Amino acid sequence: MKELRVGLVGCGFMGRTHSNAHRRLNNFFQPGRRSVLKAICDTNAEKAQAFAETWGYERVETDWRKLMQAPDIDLIDICVPNFAHAEIAIAAAQAGKIIICEKPLARSVAEAEPMVEAVEKAGVPNLVMFNYRRVPAISLAKQLIDEGRIGRPYHYRTNFLQDWTISADVPQGGDALWRLDVKAAGSGVTGDLLAHNIDTAMYLNGPITRVVARTETFVKERMHTLTGKVEPVGIDDACLFIAEFANGSLGLFESTRYARGHKALKTLELNGADGSLKFNLEEMEYLDYFQYAGVESHVRGWRRIHVTNGEHPYMSKYWVPGLVIGYEHSFLNALADFVECLETGRKFQPDFRCALQTQKVCEAVIQSGKEGRWVETGVEL
Amino acid sequence: MKELRVGLVGCGFMGRTHSNAHRRLNNFFQPGRRSVLKAICDTNAEKAQAFAETWGYERVETDWRKLMQAPDIDLIDICVPNFAHAEIAIAAAQAGKIIICEKPLARSVAEAEPMVEAVEKAGVPNLVMFNYRRVPAISLAKQLIDEGRIGRPYHYRTNFLQDWTISADVPQGGDALWRLDVKAAGSGVTGDLLAHNIDTAMYLNGPITRVVARTETFVKERMHTLTGKVEPVGIDDACLFIAEFANGSLGLFESTRYARGHKALKTLELNGADGSLKFNLEEMEYLDYFQYAGVESHVRGWRRIHVTNGEHPYMSKYWVPGLVIGYEHSFLNALADFVECLETGRKFQPDFRCALQTQKVCEAVIQSGKEGRWVETGVEL
Amino acid sequence: MKELRVGLVGCGFMGRTHSNAHRRLNNFFQPGRRSVLKAICDTNAEKAQAFAETWGYERVETDWRKLMQAPDIDLIDICVPNFAHAEIAIAAAQAGKIIICEKPLARSVAEAEPMVEAVEKAGVPNLVMFNYRRVPAISLAKQLIDEGRIGRPYHYRTNFLQDWTISADVPQGGDALWRLDVKAAGSGVTGDLLAHNIDTAMYLNGPITRVVARTETFVKERMHTLTGKVEPVGIDDACLFIAEFANGSLGLFESTRYARGHKALKTLELNGADGSLKFNLEEMEYLDYFQYAGVESHVRGWRRIHVTNGEHPYMSKYWVPGLVIGYEHSFLNALADFVECLETGRKFQPDFRCALQTQKVCEAVIQSGKEGRWVETGVEL
Amino acid sequence: MKELRVGLVGCGFMGRTHSNAHRRLNNFFQPGRRSVLKAICDTNAEKAQAFAETWGYERVETDWRKLMQAPDIDLIDICVPNFAHAEIAIAAAQAGKIIICEKPLARSVAEAEPMVEAVEKAGVPNLVMFNYRRVPAISLAKQLIDEGRIGRPYHYRTNFLQDWTISADVPQGGDALWRLDVKAAGSGVTGDLLAHNIDTAMYLNGPITRVVARTETFVKERMHTLTGKVEPVGIDDACLFIAEFANGSLGLFESTRYARGHKALKTLELNGADGSLKFNLEEMEYLDYFQYAGVESHVRGWRRIHVTNGEHPYMSKYWVPGLVIGYEHSFLNALADFVECLETGRKFQPDFRCALQTQKVCEAVIQSGKEGRWVETGVEL
Repeated sequence: MKELRVGLVGCGFMGRTHSNAHRRLNNFFQPGRRSVLKAICDTNAEKAQAFAETWGYERVETDWRKLMQAPDIDLIDICVPNFAHAEIAIAAAQAGKIIICEKPLARSVAEAEPMVEAVEKAGVPNLVMFNYRRVPAISLAKQLIDEGRIGRPYHYRTNFLQDWTISADVPQGGDALWRLDVKAAGSGVTGDLLAHNIDTAMYLNGPITRVVARTETFVKERMHTLTGKVEPVGIDDACLFIAEFANGSLGLFESTRYARGHKALKTLELNGADGSLKFNLEEMEYLDYFQYAGVESHVRGWRRIHVTNGEHPYMSKYWVPGLVIGYEHSFLNALADFVECLETGRKFQPDFRCALQTQKVCEAVIQSGKEGRWVETGVEL
Repeated sequence: MKELRVGLVGCGFMGRTHSNAHRRLNNFFQPGRRSVLKAICDTNAEKAQAFAETWGYERVETDWRKLMQAPDIDLIDICVPNFAHAEIAIAAAQAGKIIICEKPLARSVAEAEPMVEAVEKAGVPNLVMFNYRRVPAISLAKQLIDEGRIGRPYHYRTNFLQDWTISADVPQGGDALWRLDVKAAGSGVTGDLLAHNIDTAMYLNGPITRVVARTETFVKERMHTLTGKVEPVGIDDACLFIAEFANGSLGLFESTRYARGHKALKTLELNGADGSLKFNLEEMEYLDYFQYAGVESHVRGWRRIHVTNGEHPYMSKYWVPGLVIGYEHSFLNALADFVECLETGRKFQPDFRCALQTQKVCEAVIQSGKEGRWVETGVEL
Repeated sequence: MKELRVGLVGCGFMGRTHSNAHRRLNNFFQPGRRSVLKAICDTNAEKAQAFAETWGYERVETDWRKLMQAPDIDLIDICVPNFAHAEIAIAAAQAGKIIICEKPLARSVAEAEPMVEAVEKAGVPNLVMFNYRRVPAISLAKQLIDEGRIGRPYHYRTNFLQDWTISADVPQGGDALWRLDVKAAGSGVTGDLLAHNIDTAMYLNGPITRVVARTETFVKERMHTLTGKVEPVGIDDACLFIAEFANGSLGLFESTRYARGHKALKTLELNGADGSLKFNLEEMEYLDYFQYAGVESHVRGWRRIHVTNGEHPYMSKYWVPGLVIGYEHSFLNALADFVECLETGRKFQPDFRCALQTQKVCEAVIQSGKEGRWVETGVEL
Repeated sequence: MKELRVGLVGCGFMGRTHSNAHRRLNNFFQPGRRSVLKAICDTNAEKAQAFAETWGYERVETDWRKLMQAPDIDLIDICVPNFAHAEIAIAAAQAGKIIICEKPLARSVAEAEPMVEAVEKAGVPNLVMFNYRRVPAISLAKQLIDEGRIGRPYHYRTNFLQDWTISADVPQGGDALWRLDVKAAGSGVTGDLLAHNIDTAMYLNGPITRVVARTETFVKERMHTLTGKVEPVGIDDACLFIAEFANGSLGLFESTRYARGHKALKTLELNGADGSLKFNLEEMEYLDYFQYAGVESHVRGWRRIHVTNGEHPYMSKYWVPGLVIGYEHSFLNALADFVECLETGRKFQPDFRCALQTQKVCEAVIQSGKEGRWVETGVEL
């Protein structure tokens, strides 16, 4: 089978999820190519070495520039903190590599736009890992919408709630904690969490045109692990916004890392004239569907679809009906679709240009939070 | 409006639920007669007096025999412990009174049979208060079955779980605790709790023909409040049985007062070829329905029907869609149907004869528990 | 027992819930007085007559002014559409009557302020029927907060979702539909539904100081039943707002009558440093509680408290543990507390002044929706 | 790292789950050895070849006997239909191989006993794949029991419900359908499904001593794919039984493939004096726990533990708190524990002897179903 030779940059949490997807791809999917884990790259050589052993990479690099020149690398997989996405992605595009980039695309629209330009100019296939689109329940939601089951949409509400930064003793910066450092991350929950919700929302319900937001930083100062000093916290701890969709429906978005009792609660609900849909990542095997049209009134109700049957998206590839898959499989599903697009030449979504639209919404949200007024997103319609 | 003049015997928990039903009947229903609370009777005069004031009874009696001779009493409502049902009911029938009797009908089949004979000989309307049939969600379940939505039934499982007798310090006998005294109650969870499940099961799924049971008494001795002495416990603390229904399906029944975490959990589930139904008394506003036939496979799921719409049984009588009613309304619904039957001459169910069938199943269950073998119920087919 | 002689104005849905509360008060509570249903008043004499028969009122009036002069009326219970609250309440205050007023207090702050002035000048006891505070689960939520179990609050989110006006064929005006007529109602979902959420939110989490809102009217014109003509719809069909609480936490509020699948979904969630709480009116027997502080990490989880035990607010008055009460009992609980305050002289909440604060938030919300900017509520701190 | 060279027999569903576990072991666990997929064996060479390519086996065999003699194979992994377990396992033991055997151990006790004897005589490490013990929520249940949180146990109820054989058109025999052929499977739902429930039950609640069962075959004849003829169905379609545990608690077990609406519902509940536990495989990320002892009565409730935190069993090995794993990871967890036992010399459970106890219960259940009476299990105490 044709090989897809991978050079992956970044040994953190996302490096693991992407590596896992590459390694398992062909156990479940036959997209026409098989990932070969050629090189893992991290500035920390020791960490990279251990990672290579765990995941089976053939070699280790500490400078990602080496990968660009390597003739045995077809695909650059970018799993580093947000601040480094742009430089690596642009270099990879210029080197003619296929690119996978972890979300969000960048720290800002200004940083993201040249990335889009670069991949489009180079004509290289590109993917941004908004993996939740490929949770089978969310893919099924999209299918039900496309089947016309929801009708005219009125309301979309979604949130992403965590609780791991309530303690003021959690430091910022370094390793996993770069997410709390505005220089590394660009923003807080908006880019880290709401970017997912925004991508899913625009996937299911179309472009967001205007927003009004309230952002908050509950803990104003945290120890910075790199400087060893207590420094101001520049990220948004919490972000709430009201959105207008181009289709006339209204959206409500909320994210925080101060919602005690929620580790990674990501929910969404869409209400339309003919039906409604609900999803909750903590029990991701379910899609809740209220069918109004075509159901006798005395038996109408919210239906829990256990999205594990062969006729559900992706599920025929895994086990048998009723048996659940997990979070990691959303990456696997995305990769399978991407590789199939490589083979067939079909356009993969979400690509860099698509992710730029989400970036625009994020930026409008942050701006609205600062200025306390409605802001146009400028998303392509 | 025509009056239905009530003499009620027994000031306990059930005396309250029945009184409440009588008092509120005409606020919600127009069955053609209105209950007038003429007399409350209890051997404890003080208790009866207070009860009369709370519920608005016109007079107090301490000997139920007085009610039989009273020309201003149309209906005898029997809310005393099980041991006294038979004597009062038979006297009431002989006096030509309409009879409402709290469940179970009696302590045994031997005690129940003359009761049935008496009411049928006298030709007096009679009701046994298996109120759960009139929980709107259960009435809706019956309706869906009658609409042919379930198809050939395969399985029926039901339980009634409580946890209030786990402590060995709970005494038996006297007031609310007569339920633990086998002489007063006849049996334990079988007559007190499973009788409800059996009635509902036969209402929804037809006659039970054979059973094999396991009964248990976890706490072997308890202080008796009447004698002041520690005495053997004669009731069943827990009862599990497997049942065969006449329609070929299999039943599984369980009740206990040792299920920590359940105060009054009464659940049922019916599985048929074309659909399934589930109910849980702790959230009695819902009926769960799985529709198989006529639903595309990718949107099949368990549907939570919030049984609060005008088109649901009884609900048009109460508030507006979405607003829940409670436990007590099942009594009100039963009384409304009963009074309407009085007016129209239609036969009300469940009556004494119907309740006798449940008694037969209870007795077969207790016998099977003692003898450790399958027992025929002898229920009328 | 001392009598509390009631003259009730308005035979609609709320006339029923209040009458039911009066009639049943003494079956469950011993607050020292008993409601006597003296007079029902409605401009529609026929309707009033039928209502009197159903609920047991002694006489019928068609002009509420008669009640003011009646020496046999102690309490005026106002259950008419919003537009008539002010005139009746002020007259009742001037007549020295005790006053119960259905929520919202009025159509506007300008209308509400003289009402507050009138009752305070007259010194008459007064209640505004924000009944949801007395749903046992919400009363328990308040208790847990007061016990210090939630700690510093960060987030409060709440909504009230219905779906009964999706069809453009639903007319406005007249009978139950006055809620869609801005002249009768003052506002749409904001005053009708969100007023409840705002009252509960300030009860549990303190004053709301600033809001930014988005209101929408999805159906722009509806037949008016009074004029027979298609007329513009002046109410808000949907309202979403972000709120700041005086305690530093952030709120998210949403209401609509276009949320397919929800008849009367009213939810709330509060997240604090030490714990969180959730409630859903559709299954009002539960309060969900996440206890962080004092629980070992491996057994932390959201706890469903089935709020039906004797130790839960109000529940010792009703049946036995595990058995649920319904929507209507929240009115009964409120009335019981109010009557007890009459007897003891304690101050009842929510009174007119308290309801005025909710009115201020509603008005700020509507104004923000119109002007597209943050608005100060002016709520008393 | 030391190698564990695997020869796996059987390319079906279980061949896939076991292969997946071997391949991924070292991505998440460091048990001291790494699985090397040496040989895959299936009588169907073409199928074996494709399987080898998908999962990365080095070579293909069509006769399992070859594996016994192969010096480069350390471990025989048996994933064939039940009828072939005994012969292969005994040969493997005699060849001194480490053995993994899919459950149930065999078709009968008579077949299983020599298997136990063989592995014990040979002294080879052995595992029977009752994988559900290693679902993190079930492992956590065991931990909570061992921590003394449940107290004296009273009740255990469990079921395994499916619906895939309702249609009489489903044939028996061949490929995936050998489960419906009594000669291949030994029994129906008892060995295929209830064996899991029995293993978990005895893991959590100790030995089962007596049972009374009712078995049923709803569809009496099915086309046999191997003979092409309609033949009697010899398996049990459904099985219900009541059990006595050695610790004095009572068990209720049910399994069927006729429970419309359930694909693979496996639930359990344990009630003890101090607490209760519940689990449902369809939402396997949760363990429900009711804590009685040590909780104030007004905040007692069923707690949903989202078993995804680092402090929960196995979860520190995977992603981050809140993110769910799936069905397949239970195999991975089991394998990791087994390999760690190989390294440390600790005894792994469940081994063949342990699985024999489950086999005894299954056999007593089938016998009781046939004879309609209580049967002793003969399980080792």
